[in-house]
Formats: sequence, C-alpha cells, structure tokens
Amino acid sequence: MKRTLASQIIASHSTDPVKEGAICRVSVDFAFVNDITAPPAIDAMAAMGRSRVFDRKRCAIIPDHFTPNKDIASAEQAKKSRIFASEQKMLYWEVGRAGIEHAMLPEKGYILPGDIVLGADSHTCTGGAMGAFSTGMGSTDLAGAWATGETWLMVPPTVRIDFRGSISRHITGKDLILAVLREISVQGARYMALEFGGDALASMSMDHRFTVANMAVEAGGKAGLFVPDETTLAYAEARASRPFTARYPDEGCEYAKRVEIDVEKLTPLVAAPHSPDNVRPASTFGDTEIQQVFIGSCTNGRLEDMAAAASVLEGKKVHPSVRCIVIPASYEVYNACLEKGYIRTFTEAGAAVCTPTCGPCLGGHMGILAEGERCVSTSNRNFVGRMGHPKSEVYLASPVTAAWSAVKGHIADPAQEEA
Amino acid sequence: MKRTLASQIIASHSTDPVKEGAICRVSVDFAFVNDITAPPAIDAMAAMGRSRVFDRKRCAIIPDHFTPNKDIASAEQAKKSRIFASEQKMLYWEVGRAGIEHAMLPEKGYILPGDIVLGADSHTCTGGAMGAFSTGMGSTDLAGAWATGETWLMVPPTVRIDFRGSISRHITGKDLILAVLREISVQGARYMALEFGGDALASMSMDHRFTVANMAVEAGGKAGLFVPDETTLAYAEARASRPFTARYPDEGCEYAKRVEIDVEKLTPLVAAPHSPDNVRPASTFGDTEIQQVFIGSCTNGRLEDMAAAASVLEGKKVHPSVRCIVIPASYEVYNACLEKGYIRTFTEAGAAVCTPTCGPCLGGHMGILAEGERCVSTSNRNFVGRMGHPKSEVYLASPVTAAWSAVKGHIADPAQEEA
Repeated sequence: MKRTLASQIIASHSTDPVKEGAICRVSVDFAFVNDITAPPAIDAMAAMGRSRVFDRKRCAIIPDHFTPNKDIASAEQAKKSRIFASEQKMLYWEVGRAGIEHAMLPEKGYILPGDIVLGADSHTCTGGAMGAFSTGMGSTDLAGAWATGETWLMVPPTVRIDFRGSISRHITGKDLILAVLREISVQGARYMALEFGGDALASMSMDHRFTVANMAVEAGGKAGLFVPDETTLAYAEARASRPFTARYPDEGCEYAKRVEIDVEKLTPLVAAPHSPDNVRPASTFGDTEIQQVFIGSCTNGRLEDMAAAASVLEGKKVHPSVRCIVIPASYEVYNACLEKGYIRTFTEAGAAVCTPTCGPCLGGHMGILAEGERCVSTSNRNFVGRMGHPKSEVYLASPVTAAWSAVKGHIADPAQEEA
Repeated sequence: MKRTLASQIIASHSTDPVKEGAICRVSVDFAFVNDITAPPAIDAMAAMGRSRVFDRKRCAIIPDHFTPNKDIASAEQAKKSRIFASEQKMLYWEVGRAGIEHAMLPEKGYILPGDIVLGADSHTCTGGAMGAFSTGMGSTDLAGAWATGETWLMVPPTVRIDFRGSISRHITGKDLILAVLREISVQGARYMALEFGGDALASMSMDHRFTVANMAVEAGGKAGLFVPDETTLAYAEARASRPFTARYPDEGCEYAKRVEIDVEKLTPLVAAPHSPDNVRPASTFGDTEIQQVFIGSCTNGRLEDMAAAASVLEGKKVHPSVRCIVIPASYEVYNACLEKGYIRTFTEAGAAVCTPTCGPCLGGHMGILAEGERCVSTSNRNFVGRMGHPKSEVYLASPVTAAWSAVKGHIADPAQEEA
C-alpha cells in the first residue's frame, strides 16, 4: 500500500490497520497545552482518576495566550497551570523564558520529523513544518493523551500542494499559504491533511515553512505536513531533544486532490475581512486607511519575519496615525533581534515591542481594536471580532506587507513600494 | 510674608491674596490626562460648551494605562482620546512613541521649575521633582483647566522634609520616600505640600527625586516639591519646551511640620501589605517567598532604576519560581536601555520586558496577580487588590531590592546580598 506522509506517520505509530478513514490508536510523541487550555485538561486528568502524565519529558505547559497575566482570571489559569506542572515535574517555561508554544517547541527540539504531536490549540498544525503529524485537539482529548501516551486519529485523506519556482523578498511563506487558501478555500481540506512539497522548498527556510504549516488549519486541515528535506533535517538535528525518524510519502501514493502554486507568478497577497480565504493582491486595496499593524504571532513572529519587518522599517517612521505593535514569538527570536539591532530599529521607527505573547492575535491583549478600526496583521485569522470589536477589521498579510503598511498608513504593496 | 515653595509658586500664578487655607484662582502652565481619564474630561469639556483647549501646546493626552489596548473597552477609551487630540491639534503621543505620562512629560520638557501643572492622575505629584507645583485632579476639574487655562487651588500648609547625608548604592530615592512614609504615615500630609530639601540633595539625581516626589501622594500630599538646585536647572534647561522661572522658599518661612531623615542611617526598606507606610527594613522579612517581581512604573521605571536592576541581574538568573516583569517607563528610557545593553541583561536573566505602559502597577495588565501570590514591586501602592486578586500581596521596594528578590525568590536585602 502506498502511503501519503500523514498516513506513513500514523502507520509508524500504530498497530491498527492504517487506511484512509480508519480510526487508529496511535502512540503520541509529544502533547502540550497553553495557559487557556491547561485548566480543563488538568481537570479532565483528575476526572479520569489519573494522577501522572505518561512521560514528563513529552508533556508540556506553555503560558503564552494571556501572559503576562492580563487580569485576575488569566492569573488564576496561569497559576493552576504552574502548580500542576510543578507537581508533575513536566516541561514548563515561565513568562520571560519561553514564548509562543508553536514557535518555541520546534526551536527547542520537541517537535521532530516523523512525530505525532498533539496540542490543545488549533495552530498545533505549525509543527507540520518539521515533517511531523502535529494536530490540535480539545483539552479533554489532550488529557487522555497525557494520561495514556496514546490517542485515536482518523487517517485523513491528503491534499497535495506543490510549490513551484522559488520565493523572493516580496513573496514569503505567508503569501504562499494565502495563495493556497485562495485556491482551495477555508473548506478545502476539512479533516484532511495538507502535504507540502515541490521544487520551491529548496528556496524556503524553516521560518517560511512554519508560516505555511501554521495556517493549514485555516483550510480546515487536520494537519499540514512538509515533506522533509535537507533543510528540515539540519534544523531538527541541531535541536533535537530525542532521537527521531523522518518519514516520507511513497512515490505514487494517492491524493484526494493536487494543487500547484507557481510561486514566481505571485504578487504580495492580503486576506481581507472576514475570512482567511478572502484573498486579493495587496495592490488592489487602494488607499484603505489603517489604524494598527501587528507583526508577530505563531504565524509570523520568527526571526526571518522580524528581519523582513526591520529591513522595511530601518530608517523610516511608522505613520503618525498608526500604532505598530511588534511581538517576537519566542525568547530565542527576541534575543536574536536584540543582537541584530532589530529591536532598536523597531523602537526608533516608533513601534511598540512587547515580550513574547500571543497578545492581540486572538483579541487577548496588547493591541485590541476599537469599533471601526482596521489592522494589518501577520497573524492567522481575520474572523469578525477576532482582534477586538465586532466592527473592527483585520487584514492578514506578510511581515513585509505589514511593515510597509505601517509606514504608509494604508494597505501597501511591497512590490510597488520597493519597485 | 515669607512663603514656602508651594505658596511661592501659587502666588506667582495668582492675583488673589495668597495665604495658607485661602482658595486662589491660578493660571495653569500645563494640563494633561491619560487614556482612562481622557474620556470623562472630553465629555466635561462638551458639557461646559467649550470646544477648544486653552492652549494646544500646554494640554496633552498620553495613552499609558491600558495601552497597548488590553480589551475592547480600553480600545474605545484610547480611540476617543486619539480623535479628540487630533481634532484639537493638542499634544498627544501614540503607543510606541511615548511612555508613562509622569516619566515622559518632564523628559520632554513640559513640566518645568516654577510651573503649576495639573494632571488627571494622582501621581501627577511626580512633577514636583522639577520644583513645580504639580498636582492630580479629577477629570472634570481638569476639563475646566483645559477650557480656561485656570483652576482654583487651596494654598496648602507645607511639611518640610530634610534629607541629611548622602545616598548610596543600596539606598535609593525609593528608600527615602519609604522612610518618610514610615515617619509621617499615609495621613501625614493630607492636603498639604511636602517640600524636600537638605544636603542629601547634592547626591540625588533627578531620577531619585522623581521617585520621592511621585509618592508624595501616598502621604496624602497635594504636591511634593523639591527645592530647585543646580541638578534641577541643568535637567530643565536641557529639555525645556518653553521659558520658565524657578521659585524658591523664603528663608525663615513657616512649616506645619519639619522632618529630618538621616539618609546614611537607613537600610533598604520595604512597605509590606497593605499600606505604603507599613515600612520595615528589607532584612526583617526572613524568607518570605514571592511569585512575581515588577520593576517599572512612574515611580521607578527610569534609566537609573533600570541600571540598578541590570547591575544586580547581570550574569544572574531570575529564580525559577518567579516571574520578573521589567517595563521601562518611557521610550527615552527604553532606547537608552537598549543602547546600554540592559534589555539584553534582563532577557538573559529570564525577565520579560514590555513596551512602556503602567501595566501591572494598577492591576491593569501585563502581570496581574492570582489569589495568594506575592509580588515585590517598585511601584507606589500596595493596597488590597492593587495588582490583582484581593488576596494577593504587594511589597513595595526599590529596583535594587526588587532585583535581588527576583534572583533569590524571596524578599531580599541588597545590603546583605552584596555585603
């Protein structure tokens, strides 16, 4: 039987017959929650009568959503998480020493090629950039995995995406995934796996791949897996917290659908309100005025994202009527930004730089929108009210497009600005 | 008639007979609000039927309390402030370009020796470090000053504080004002002015003086004025946004009370819950465990505060069970910290550094406490629930004491740690 990458990984973790549509019991390599999803997972563990996580080196809590605590309720969530992590002696990174879960776990070598990874957060699909089957679940299911080291997965059909050509300064991972969403829509991969390959991977850094995999869920994907290559293996080997075995799709395996994206034909893209697949070229927005720009999140808060934004903002000023909020996604990224002078570039341009947190992406804190305000955001969702008031608007774009928009005060096309 | 400094300044701004207890009409040099107090001031202006502020270079709005916006309500407040400031063409600094009102206004030369300054925030007394009569008012009174350029002030009696000796590494402005509060209590200067002088001023930088003046209101003070000296004048002349005339108390003027503080006899001090005058030596707290340290606020978020904290944290790590949140009070401070490597020292120690904001000081955001948690904070108030849950505890201390506490995981005495 010829297998897709998703099916291959599930088969390597299960003794059940693995075929599309079957529900298989699989072993879990890593399972994590954040400050919001930890408390119900902790309660579910207790309700199951289970007192210990299956492996304290494979179970983690990362406070990142409402941290540093935005209010008493979030402080209580974080406290409950911290106490449980301490009792279990499981993996835990405190505020100031970690970052956003989906950014820091691959950085620290906890999500590896060939893994099955569960996270109680929808953007757990980010880990697919590593060539892992990494998927989001509710806290109760996650607690089951914590307790047993196993879970059930329905083997998903796979949509294969081939990126052709090579990416350039103006065309980033964000533009690629927005192009995918434009092509297949937010329903295009419901309970399916996306499998990313093609010759364009040769020009794609891990940071670009994380951005692409991160938004697999915006197409309804259960997971979004990059076929591992030298880039993947070099990244993983330099960081691995344990041994791993990379998996690959069989040649000639069957896909539910195949899509080709010619990367070199793309122009910078923006997803307009209120859906990530409402995608148009950045050049088509005219002078749509904006009040805020957010550069960060698990989608686009990595070092290359920061470098791209800094290269635009260097020596320029954020438009007087725009707030520009920059949040590196992890302390590895933050410290590298300090080292390279990006933080200074941001503050000298008039941007506000904050400690790693999910912050405004999910309407959490650190940049919530008022009625009628428009934000260009490098994050992943532009649903109604996602970043604040139900009558605010979110435009999803790459860090390059976002930084140019911050300078111009309206949605800007980097290709035109730098022409 | 021999006048105190407060009386002298009021007399220079009024044509009414100025004597203690009299209510005098005075001209106002500068009047400002923040994102919380702006909306009611704007509404009050409208209710008075006044459409313009009296002088757009002397009226300001500074978003600093719940900014970057923590939620929709705070986003709406900030939006209302921003729109009004734009319509009025009055002074306004956006998130990312300003900082905490009480830190940035003197930095930018808007609070000057001899001034009468009004702010719709209780810590407006901070400006007294400049030798100004700087006092907090409600938004409605502030709106009256915006509309007319005048206000009424009752001429306050004055408590004279003389600092003797010279300050040292372990004894900072924070320890001095805590010593004053221990001496005169939180009721000690109700509707009075505090006037700070003495030979110890020669060893006190402006940053130390801002900390002392900032907490005048914790003694009930209407204002807390430093007698200007060369340090004041040099600072003011380098930054002044307009001409000014320094004022001085008459020799032999009458004070309601005189207090001397021998600075050299002080040990590092901490105000225990739940009152700023519940002051004891830092050495007396044994191993009182803490969960958070906050270094920042209008009290202690200036460059020397950051330098003091960095000198402790350099090469050390924040205790594993402590969150350490560092927030420079303004972008001038933030950028200087970048330049000097302090931000890097903080993040390498495991502290979370945030864009300038009042943040956790007032239980706003960026570090709110859960039930039962203890925080050593360089801020100004430790009332019940000030930084979060009503059953949390706040211990007020200097940046040196706070930084050592962050490293040790309990309330620490810098004099002992560095002995």
